[in-house]
This record gives sequence, structure tokens and C-alpha cells, in this order.
Amino acid sequence: MDTSRDLVGAAAARDAEHAAAGRAERFVLPEGVVYLDGNSLGALPVGVAERVAQVVTAEWGEGLVRSWNDAGWWPAAERVGDRIGALVGAAPGQTVVTDSTTTNLFKVVAAAARMRPGRTRVLVDADSFPTDLYVVSSAAALVGLTVERVHPTGAPARIREVGDDLALTVYSSLDYRTGELWDLGEITRAVHEVGGLSCWDLCHSAGVLDVHLDDDDADFAVGCGYKYLNGGPGAPSFVYVRREHLEHFHNPVAGWNGHARPFGMERDYDPSPTINRARTGTSPMISLLALEAALGAYDGVPVAALRARSLSLTAFFVECLAPLGVDLPVATPMDGECRGSQVSLRHPDAYAVVQALIARGVIGDFREPDIIRLGFAPLYVSHADALAAAEHLGAVLSGAEHERPENTRRATVT
Amino acid sequence: MDTSRDLVGAAAARDAEHAAAGRAERFVLPEGVVYLDGNSLGALPVGVAERVAQVVTAEWGEGLVRSWNDAGWWPAAERVGDRIGALVGAAPGQTVVTDSTTTNLFKVVAAAARMRPGRTRVLVDADSFPTDLYVVSSAAALVGLTVERVHPTGAPARIREVGDDLALTVYSSLDYRTGELWDLGEITRAVHEVGGLSCWDLCHSAGVLDVHLDDDDADFAVGCGYKYLNGGPGAPSFVYVRREHLEHFHNPVAGWNGHARPFGMERDYDPSPTINRARTGTSPMISLLALEAALGAYDGVPVAALRARSLSLTAFFVECLAPLGVDLPVATPMDGECRGSQVSLRHPDAYAVVQALIARGVIGDFREPDIIRLGFAPLYVSHADALAAAEHLGAVLSGAEHERPENTRRATVT
Repeated sequence: MDTSRDLVGAAAARDAEHAAAGRAERFVLPEGVVYLDGNSLGALPVGVAERVAQVVTAEWGEGLVRSWNDAGWWPAAERVGDRIGALVGAAPGQTVVTDSTTTNLFKVVAAAARMRPGRTRVLVDADSFPTDLYVVSSAAALVGLTVERVHPTGAPARIREVGDDLALTVYSSLDYRTGELWDLGEITRAVHEVGGLSCWDLCHSAGVLDVHLDDDDADFAVGCGYKYLNGGPGAPSFVYVRREHLEHFHNPVAGWNGHARPFGMERDYDPSPTINRARTGTSPMISLLALEAALGAYDGVPVAALRARSLSLTAFFVECLAPLGVDLPVATPMDGECRGSQVSLRHPDAYAVVQALIARGVIGDFREPDIIRLGFAPLYVSHADALAAAEHLGAVLSGAEHERPENTRRATVT
Repeated sequence: MDTSRDLVGAAAARDAEHAAAGRAERFVLPEGVVYLDGNSLGALPVGVAERVAQVVTAEWGEGLVRSWNDAGWWPAAERVGDRIGALVGAAPGQTVVTDSTTTNLFKVVAAAARMRPGRTRVLVDADSFPTDLYVVSSAAALVGLTVERVHPTGAPARIREVGDDLALTVYSSLDYRTGELWDLGEITRAVHEVGGLSCWDLCHSAGVLDVHLDDDDADFAVGCGYKYLNGGPGAPSFVYVRREHLEHFHNPVAGWNGHARPFGMERDYDPSPTINRARTGTSPMISLLALEAALGAYDGVPVAALRARSLSLTAFFVECLAPLGVDLPVATPMDGECRGSQVSLRHPDAYAVVQALIARGVIGDFREPDIIRLGFAPLYVSHADALAAAEHLGAVLSGAEHERPENTRRATVT
């Protein structure tokens, strides 16, 4: 049997089956690269470079300060927020783009403490992306909350034990290392049973999972703009505040962009009645408008189709491994219900394996201690790419390329 | 006497005298525009558009996630911070670019409260740019400080009265409406007499006043990147933490970019020993690298020469007013010791006058309630520009152009 030819045929068939969500032509991807790190930095969409050039040369250079009005800069934070909201099941007026995910989490923790006076507990995923742990702890310390680190699978039970002492939970849709999905709907239901508030971290799910913030009764959500949303390096973050909470959302980082009348230059802070109250100072407009342009890559692509293509890509990649002689433990659940848009494999020399893959043009990333993390951004990754990645991985391992000195040497950033 | 010809000659002579700091050729300015709003949004420096295109197309598009290492993205926050530090008298290692001015002020207030336990007072300029009032208040409320709003001229006396209850002062170099300078050195000396800490807001002074943070014993400073530093709309802000305070600076918005080992993905926060500890989440790199490129406009220009040119520009503009028939109250001190890089005039219909000037290509801005604010960025504004602005202002007033309906109608952002 010609395994390789069979897999090529299977990849083509799957790409045809999931063509509804494949938009590789909307991205500028370098020749010879299989890009499986869109969950760290999304690829560059077509048109973003042109839009950024227009922002810099025409809007800033020619329009100068007039562009705050004339080029629609001022309302961009809300406008882009609503566009992201549409990808995560949020009706307009509840999502705004501002600051970093870290800063937005800070605001949510402080605001939640004030919305649930007397309650002292905040629960956070013990295996969360570390910045969540850091900032939830630093914010909690300031507002008098006590942080409990609880694994998501144990969260509903622990929430019910904590009962009316629970102020807030902060959980991500998935484990960023393994891609295992959590049931945020279930956690949120438990939180609401005891009268608490629930914040969803969508950094690894916005634009790739079928998220329904409004329907699933999320109270708050945060997420970054630079992973699957493809907004560019360090693109500003978004924050969602459920409409019914807006008037109670007291932003602890009160800045003039969140004021009801920012140009009134009033001495006292009167928060905007809109989601603008979650803003602080002036947003980095070039980065924000790059993110806006990038979101055009999602035009006309149903989130459900993206999710289906993502599941197919990750399943297919794993299916390719054994026929290609790759026998590594898969850290990612193979039950689609429990799998995000990535496949993580374990290897004792995971760092070097990732470097060897990069040298072959297959870009994934390494996560401590032993994770080879491969993200499948369904908009621009194809099943043919998945097959190619598996083939390269087989070649790296069979050729012991991960033992070469150039691959074992650690760079400053990985 | 031909007044107009005399003034033209005087402008030329002054431009020649202050040529050392004039670098208009380093900026892209639209034809027919006299730009006097660089204290709101700095003009576009030559080369920034090209650098931004390179960042987007080559570094993001081709380099993808590898550019965090290969293109020097990761250390950019510190690198650009040091470059700004050089403009405000800060030795390397104390200044970092991150977040907005609002968020950086928040960090400083919270950190200062912890560095001066038991002290309860923070003094802030009563006429401060409003965001300072808002965020100092919101931060103080969280950390148990009480805010007192005290005019800068009364600050030293009040500081001595407050004595050992003083934790922090937050003062800007100048009044953002009138351009009146304050003696931050004197305020800082009083603060240190009572054992407190002093934060300088340099939004309106970085890149245009001769600031000496290290020599004048400032403890902290913040400032934005988009005014005289010309970093582009909403360019990220900088924060300075004096070297001796670094190890005590506890950032309340603890994020992974501030960790000693950000890629260790450790569960507990261990702050970086460097100024990186003032960072939070990932910075908006396109905006940050645009700021870096923009700072090249300062290359080889001594800050003292900029200050001299700035003083000459503002003095000359005022000198032109009477000969051109403009008789408006000047809100800005004419004593150079007390004047920032702007001239503010009062007029009951200031908003409409500013609109009429903009219609003539002279871009300044309006500040409540009656201020026509004209900023003179010495790098790219000439004495000939100052004369042209005065001539246009004379024509607006003599022609009652500010009474035309198109100039009295308020836009959403002014």
C-alpha cells in the first residue's frame, strides 16, 4: 500500500469537504512554510499592509489630529469590539478593544469585587496561562479577595462548596498547552447558582471555537487580538461586559477614554454609560486599525464551519502520525468535544524537536516542560499542510535532527 | 513701515539663529498646513511609513512568530524606553515603553502606596489633565490613599504641612491648557524633605523641555509617546522608575511580560529585576516600533537647542500678534522660565476660532472653556510658520470667520 499517496488523497478530500471555512487566499504566507503557530501569533491577512500604510501615510501624515474625527479613529475601539463580539456570540455594545488581556483581567477582578461586596473568593484555573494567575493574584490582593487555584474539572463542585462567598471565577476555554477544552457553560451555571460572576478567557478560542457569550450567560470575557484573530504582534485585547452589568462595572483604571464626555475635560470621573467605560487611555491606533483590517479575513465564514474544519484538521494530523512512523504521546484529547484547535505532542526533547521543525519550515512552538504545540488556524491551514507537518515531524525524528547542536541551543524567546 | 516685510525678515533671521534644532525635512507635512497641534498628535516623521511597512510585511508576514527573537521585538520595550530616557535625562535601564499613560499612572500610585506604608496622602495638581485626576483617584481608592488636589504653586507648602503622611505627588511639567510651567524640582525637593515620592507627568514635556529626571531626583515619571515624541496616534506610553526604587516597585497589574522568566510559564509571579517589571501584557508592536522609528527624528539634536528654539518660536508668535492686529489675552506666561512649548489665547468663541483656523490650514486645538491652544513643536515648526499662523488668526478675526455656521458647529471630537 502506498501510505503517502493515500494520505495525500485523504487530505485533498478533507480540504474539499471543509472548503467553506478555508480562506488561505486571504493570507500572506511565506513560501515553503507550514504555519502552525497561529495560536501564538496569527498570520498576516491580505490587505492589512495596505490598510496600515493608509493609516500611517494618509490618516496620520495628511489628516493629522483631524483624523480622530474624520477617519473614524475615535469610535474604532467600540467598532472593532463589536466585530469581535460577533465572532464570540456577543450582541453589539458589550465588547470593546482596549489595553492588553492582562490589564483587562485586572479591571474585571476589581470590578467584580465591587459588584459582589462581602464575598471573598475568586477561583482561577490552576493550570491557566500564567499571566492570568499573576494578574488575578495581584488584583485580588488589592481588592481583598482570596485566590483559589482549582482545576476546571473540579471547579463546579468547589464553586458549590464555596457558595455565597464566591465573587468571581476566571477560566479559559481550554488548557493552552494541551488544547483540552473545558465546559465554561457548566462552570458558569454553577457560578450563577451561588450568585457569583464568571469571566471567560477567550485568548485561545476567539475566532476558532463556537463561543456563545450571550447565550451561555457569561458575565465577562477577555481575549487577545493577535492569536486566531490575526491582529498582528501585540494587537490590543478585547473585553466583554454583559449588558446588564454595564452600569455596575466600575473600571479601577479610570481614564479619560472611559469618561462619558472625554472632551469635556471635567475634573471628576463620570463613566461612560456604554462599554467605553472599560477603556483607559488612548489606544494604539495603528495596531488597533491593523486588527480591524485583519478581521476582514473572517467575512462570510460561519464560526460553525471554522469549528468543523478545525476539528477535522487536528483529527487528520493525528491520523497521519502512525502511518508516518511518528509514535509520540498525544497530550490533546481525541474526543472532539474536548479538543481546541491544536495538537500537542510530548517529547523529552520537545524544544529541540520544535527547532528542528522550524528549520524545515514547520513553525509550531514549545511549551514547558515537554510539549510540542501545533496550532491549526482553520482559516489558512489546510489538511495538506497538516500532512506535510506530520511528514516533516517523521523526518526530524527518524533523522535525529533534534539532536543537532543548532536545535538544542535555546534562544531568548521560544 | 512695512510691518509684514519686517516680520518676514525677523522670522528668517530667527530660523537661521535656531537652525540647530530645526529638522522639518525629517517630517512629512501636508502642503499648505501650519501644524500647531504636535502637543496633541505629533506629525509623521520621514521613514516611519517605510519602517511600519517592513514590520508588517517582512517581520510579521514573513518572519511570523520568529520575529519575537529574530527581529528584536522582545527587547523593544526596553530599547525604546532607553531612547526616550535619553531625551528626559534618564540613564539606561529605568525607562520602559508599555501600556497607556493612564495605566502607568495607576501602577505608580499603587506601587508608591506599598513603598510608603502607613502614609495616606497623595497630592495631585487640581488643574491636571483630567485623566491624571481620574486614575489617581481610582487607584488611590483601591490602595487606601486619600487624594488632595492642590495647585502646583501651593504644593511645596502643602507638602510640608502634610509631612510624614505624604506618600506621593503627581504633577505635570505644565498646565496643558495655558502652557504654564511648574517647578517640579522644587516640588520634588519638598516631597523628599518629608520622605515621600514624586511622580512627574511628562506628556507635554518629553522631547521639548529640558528635563533631567536623574539629576532632579524624580522617583517616577510617565508620559505618552504620541505628542512631541511623534510616535503616532495612541503610541504606547513610557514609565520611568528610578534605579534605586526598582527592586521595591511592585506592579499591581502583574503580567507575564513583567516576569523575570516570561517563557518559563511559571505559576507564581517573580518580577523581573529590571524595568521590565513595569510591563504587563504584550505591547502593541506595530505602534511601538512606529514610535521607535519616529524617535530617529531627534537624532543629533540637543535637547537644549530644542528648548531654545521652542522659546524663540512661542515668543516670536506673540510678538507678531499686535502688529497684525490681533488683540487677544495671552494665557501663556511670557517669562520664558515659566513657558512650555505652546501659546494659548483666550477668546469667548475659541472653538469657532480654532475651526476657522483649521479651515485655513492652521491646525491648533480648542480646550474648554475659551482656550485657543497652539503648540510649537520645535523640530518641525518654523518661525515662518509662526508668522503665518498669526497672519491667519488676524484674518479670521478681522473677517469674523469664526461667526460662520460651519465653524460654530461642534464635531464629536475636538
